[in-house]
Amino acid sequence: MSEQLGPKLERPVVERLAIIGCGLIGSSLLRVARRRNLARRIVATDASAPVRARVVELGLADEVHDSAADAVRDADLIILCAPVGANAAIAAEIAPALSTGAIVSDVGSVKGAVASAVAPFIPKGVHFIPGHPVAGTEQSGPDAGFPTLFLNRWCILTPPAGADPHAVETLSAFWTAAGSNVETMSCEHHDLVLAITSHVPHLIAYNIVGTAADLEEVTQSEVIKFSAGGFRDFTRIAASNPTMWRDVFLNNKDAVLEILGRFTEDLSALQRMIRWGDGDGLFALFTRTRDIRRSIIEIGQESDVPDFGRHQSDPQ
Amino acid sequence: MSEQLGPKLERPVVERLAIIGCGLIGSSLLRVARRRNLARRIVATDASAPVRARVVELGLADEVHDSAADAVRDADLIILCAPVGANAAIAAEIAPALSTGAIVSDVGSVKGAVASAVAPFIPKGVHFIPGHPVAGTEQSGPDAGFPTLFLNRWCILTPPAGADPHAVETLSAFWTAAGSNVETMSCEHHDLVLAITSHVPHLIAYNIVGTAADLEEVTQSEVIKFSAGGFRDFTRIAASNPTMWRDVFLNNKDAVLEILGRFTEDLSALQRMIRWGDGDGLFALFTRTRDIRRSIIEIGQESDVPDFGRHQSDPQ
Repeated sequence: MSEQLGPKLERPVVERLAIIGCGLIGSSLLRVARRRNLARRIVATDASAPVRARVVELGLADEVHDSAADAVRDADLIILCAPVGANAAIAAEIAPALSTGAIVSDVGSVKGAVASAVAPFIPKGVHFIPGHPVAGTEQSGPDAGFPTLFLNRWCILTPPAGADPHAVETLSAFWTAAGSNVETMSCEHHDLVLAITSHVPHLIAYNIVGTAADLEEVTQSEVIKFSAGGFRDFTRIAASNPTMWRDVFLNNKDAVLEILGRFTEDLSALQRMIRWGDGDGLFALFTRTRDIRRSIIEIGQESDVPDFGRHQSDPQ
Repeated sequence: MSEQLGPKLERPVVERLAIIGCGLIGSSLLRVARRRNLARRIVATDASAPVRARVVELGLADEVHDSAADAVRDADLIILCAPVGANAAIAAEIAPALSTGAIVSDVGSVKGAVASAVAPFIPKGVHFIPGHPVAGTEQSGPDAGFPTLFLNRWCILTPPAGADPHAVETLSAFWTAAGSNVETMSCEHHDLVLAITSHVPHLIAYNIVGTAADLEEVTQSEVIKFSAGGFRDFTRIAASNPTMWRDVFLNNKDAVLEILGRFTEDLSALQRMIRWGDGDGLFALFTRTRDIRRSIIEIGQESDVPDFGRHQSDPQ
């Protein structure tokens, strides 16, 4: 597994790349595209004028357009990087300006609902291939991005039945050159996988932080002071972009409710073990869960430094 | 806030320190005691012979005894660092060997049940002052410890009514010299505070990892591969010591069930928002939770590096 991005490509993967939305993900794509020469010309736009101005200031793109329609003109790869709830409106806006043969993709954490919302706007002759880089931090905006965000992370593509193999190949080459491993699956399966590996974890993190904030007997300042006992881990993902996450839950309702149902069922069983003092049952679960972390570390999706490296380990 | 441990004390806080149990916490205490000269003589024991042998090998103590009773003889500060379920038996064993005027403390994550289990064994003339350093990592055993584990973390003391002020002061001086901030509260309040800041967070982390392991539609290897979407954060605390955590839940039943009840109540409300598409409700919660992390970072209980510093931040 490579520890860093490779050198600039001699031949760019695409001619003209248009990034719509320059938050954490979009601005990271702009950065890696420039760094690795993924496109001959890099074009960006964002719905927010201050964000556009900041992208200009940071020099992240060759062209920054006020309108998405202008940004996509003549582009051969267009990646929608807005919160998933915004994608249908963007698709409607850019549709008339898309060139025949262009590839439209996105980076949303939900695929089924978004793919169905966007597909009707995509003109004949344009390839629509949804995508999702499983990467991010709890920070947002064009300043939060960095070129190695996708390095050694997985990017999931969900090409519809009958998608053009050449277009899928180009998109896959783009993400590979951005540092990612690429996997292909159906929208439905993606949404279920992400419900358990990302959406429900975020939901319960948001929830426990909310529960803590609402207690009367324990003051806010106590929660904050004594957070090193485990709570602070949850506050990281509960600090993620609220708009993005609202849209995720609204758009992946079925899979989230299904996984959430299992989670609360399992939690009730645990609660019962605690109430009835079933130490063996608790011990059995607490042992089983250790192996999963070990595997995640083994395949390089997590570091093995204790406590996320918060301490300077200093034996003796 | 100091970034590192101070120099060796000219005058040790206690004469003879006995550490019972040399896992992550006990071995970290041994290390910081040596490093900062917290005791003139450092004595250790552990129920496990291989652990005792390792403590000798690592040179963590001046004396390593096979029996807890031998270890506490003539000690003026004895700290029980075993899983909380073992404390009553240890107290029974060491009671006859304790010197008048000695201080007995512990490091357990539960105070009420443990204090009542241990107190009856403590002889007249010996000071029993329960304690809890809110610090740790997901690793266990004598090799996992390090001297700065308690640096800038809080240590909570729960002295019983009528505790000797001088003994409390000595114990407090000991933890302060180990790098901690010391706070005093009742056992009952401690157990409620820790239920929300530590115990229930661990429980739901263990639970989501268990739910993920049991899914039929999503393979284990998919959960592991795509864990960077949030799930892997939970696997860290779900990799903690199973014995320690079993004992925590068995011994802090009431507070854990109380907080868990609130958590599931709140989660049902969130679930309902998702089912009915209440985007504003979701957005309101997701915004509110951001502030808590900001406060935790501000008071130095968490770093502000994105994604726990997993990426090398490399802007542009």
